[in-house]
Amino acid sequence: MKNSGQNYNVTAIGDISARGRVTLHDALGLTGSEISINELPPGASVPFVHAHKRNEEVYIVVQGRGRFYVDGEEFAIAEGSVVRVAPSGARCLAADPHTPLRYICIQTETGSLVQFTENDGVILDSKPTWLQQPGA
Amino acid sequence: MKNSGQNYNVTAIGDISARGRVTLHDALGLTGSEISINELPPGASVPFVHAHKRNEEVYIVVQGRGRFYVDGEEFAIAEGSVVRVAPSGARCLAADPHTPLRYICIQTETGSLVQFTENDGVILDSKPTWLQQPGA
Repeated sequence: MKNSGQNYNVTAIGDISARGRVTLHDALGLTGSEISINELPPGASVPFVHAHKRNEEVYIVVQGRGRFYVDGEEFAIAEGSVVRVAPSGARCLAADPHTPLRYICIQTETGSLVQFTENDGVILDSKPTWLQQPGA
Repeated sequence: MKNSGQNYNVTAIGDISARGRVTLHDALGLTGSEISINELPPGASVPFVHAHKRNEEVYIVVQGRGRFYVDGEEFAIAEGSVVRVAPSGARCLAADPHTPLRYICIQTETGSLVQFTENDGVILDSKPTWLQQPGA
């Protein structure tokens, strides 16, 4: 499998349960975000509370259950939970005692998004092989 | 469960297999990204090829197998594949015939990230209840 082209890069996360954390900024040459895929073993916590100077963070829980802390408040999280935290939010999270917690964390510059989706996308006439009509 | 505070917002994606696509920018008040969680049923494709004016996109496959198209090249993707596409890349993707394809797509302003992780994070002294030592 070719893993890069003029306009793209591809990587494979591999076995996150064995690695604990994978970061994508350097692996993919990202310029608008740092993205990490993380797995906390059952009962484990991020070992400290932290805030950010500039970056908004979004946490997407893709597997398991746990607890999230922001500014002294605590709440349950589970697969499908998504949490946005502003830079100054003091944050931490942990896995429940009997389940690992797998989550994606996305850091971006606060206020940087100019436009998106319909306002930024351009539909093109080219087609992959699977959308080409026979004989077209 | 409280779903927002001064520095955070929380949402729950719900049953993505029934909804097909969930977008987070408006739901969470994001300012640095648009993030969508998407599920293509077995054999389904995004129905068009598209590019972007300003935004870098990152696709993270969280379940299933499929095919990805960029600028006339096609390659296989599967759980754990991550693809960065520059704005001008002409892109499309599809699920394999016998498996749904679930993926997260992150749009950010190209070149917007100033600093991250160690250079942007600040470790704090506060602790969630689960990191407090008895008697501390």
